[in-house]
Amino acid sequence: MSTQNADPRAELKRQAAIEAADMVKDGMVVGLGSGSTSAFMIEELGRRWADGLRFSAIPTSERSAEQARSHGIRLVTFATHPQIDIDIDGADEVERGSLNLIKGLGGALFREKIVAAAARKFVVVVDDSKLVDRLGARVPVPVEVANFGWTSTARQLEALGAKITQRLDRGGNVFVTDGGNMILDCHFGPIADSASLQRQLEQIVGVIETGLFIGRTSEVIVATADGLQRLGVA
Amino acid sequence: MSTQNADPRAELKRQAAIEAADMVKDGMVVGLGSGSTSAFMIEELGRRWADGLRFSAIPTSERSAEQARSHGIRLVTFATHPQIDIDIDGADEVERGSLNLIKGLGGALFREKIVAAAARKFVVVVDDSKLVDRLGARVPVPVEVANFGWTSTARQLEALGAKITQRLDRGGNVFVTDGGNMILDCHFGPIADSASLQRQLEQIVGVIETGLFIGRTSEVIVATADGLQRLGVA
Repeated sequence: MSTQNADPRAELKRQAAIEAADMVKDGMVVGLGSGSTSAFMIEELGRRWADGLRFSAIPTSERSAEQARSHGIRLVTFATHPQIDIDIDGADEVERGSLNLIKGLGGALFREKIVAAAARKFVVVVDDSKLVDRLGARVPVPVEVANFGWTSTARQLEALGAKITQRLDRGGNVFVTDGGNMILDCHFGPIADSASLQRQLEQIVGVIETGLFIGRTSEVIVATADGLQRLGVA
Repeated sequence: MSTQNADPRAELKRQAAIEAADMVKDGMVVGLGSGSTSAFMIEELGRRWADGLRFSAIPTSERSAEQARSHGIRLVTFATHPQIDIDIDGADEVERGSLNLIKGLGGALFREKIVAAAARKFVVVVDDSKLVDRLGARVPVPVEVANFGWTSTARQLEALGAKITQRLDRGGNVFVTDGGNMILDCHFGPIADSASLQRQLEQIVGVIETGLFIGRTSEVIVATADGLQRLGVA
């Protein structure tokens, strides 16, 4: 039995990640996403680095940075490389048609969004279990909020229809983001107009950033049991 | 010579601050602003506290908290007091007519805005040198941004027409906000449509909050050489 059949879903993700790695060319500045699919992609980029491909990478989390470093991939910062050629990342939900996303269940939404915003091309890699007709159907929208006044911020989120869970870490303590803030997971159910919701969320003062990625996706590579699918914005 | 005439501008501010303190009634939850005018207001509230007035205060900065504490004023937090009856604060510019504001030259813009947003009534106290026909005429808009990717964020601010100065502290190091972020002072010149600018700024991913306070002011108390003026929204 080959290792490829050990976990069919993981193997699908790995194939999609390889397809995404194909888009990285010599001399590019590359955003490295976070999460399990991104880990496959960084592994593949590490293989290509060993084969002589040369690029500069901006990681979106400490974990991705470590993995890239272990392959000898060159890491750079925005200060010297403000323009990113391509950013490749996973997602928690992808809306069919619009290709809008929910991200941030892993906790790195702010950095992931900053890198995506700075990229000329933003490529998302998922398996087909992440495709939905309406965002919010299965997962909450993670919202990063300031600790100061967070109960007041939470009430304003509830006024928009959210059922709120304060995110905890594995030890049962309040989860702390890279920026020192907390995350409120906001369960809206299926969201009819996610662009409008994003604008309303941005206007709440204590909200630092949300996991709604609206109009930022260039392309989605989807791993399905029948092979890879590539989706562009409709 | 009485001390009241030592600094005519300070005496004007003090009179306006007393007028604002008149609005604080027994049992209220009160937001305490930051800056020189707020210091006069807290001093006056301390005098009234000594005379038996009882209220609960939520300070917007550590400095205001200390001053209130020194008078024995009861400090509370959002967790137990999510609804603020009145918030009284200063401003760096007040636009005639709209009563929109620029705040945050003191560095506490995020907390000040969270408290203002949670208050049923937001009262601003200034002397008449702060009144302008268009915001941005004299002072920059302070914008709090995440350290991660700030050069990319700065380029997006410049694309909106801002000339940017990174704020430094008195020692010449990068100024750090209560939230651990930096402030970019954005010089726009006179701003024709500050509500529209605020929406554009909110959409930039690395922007945490701005010093534009749009549609939040209930009333402005203005100290002029001819006495006090009270302005409501036109």
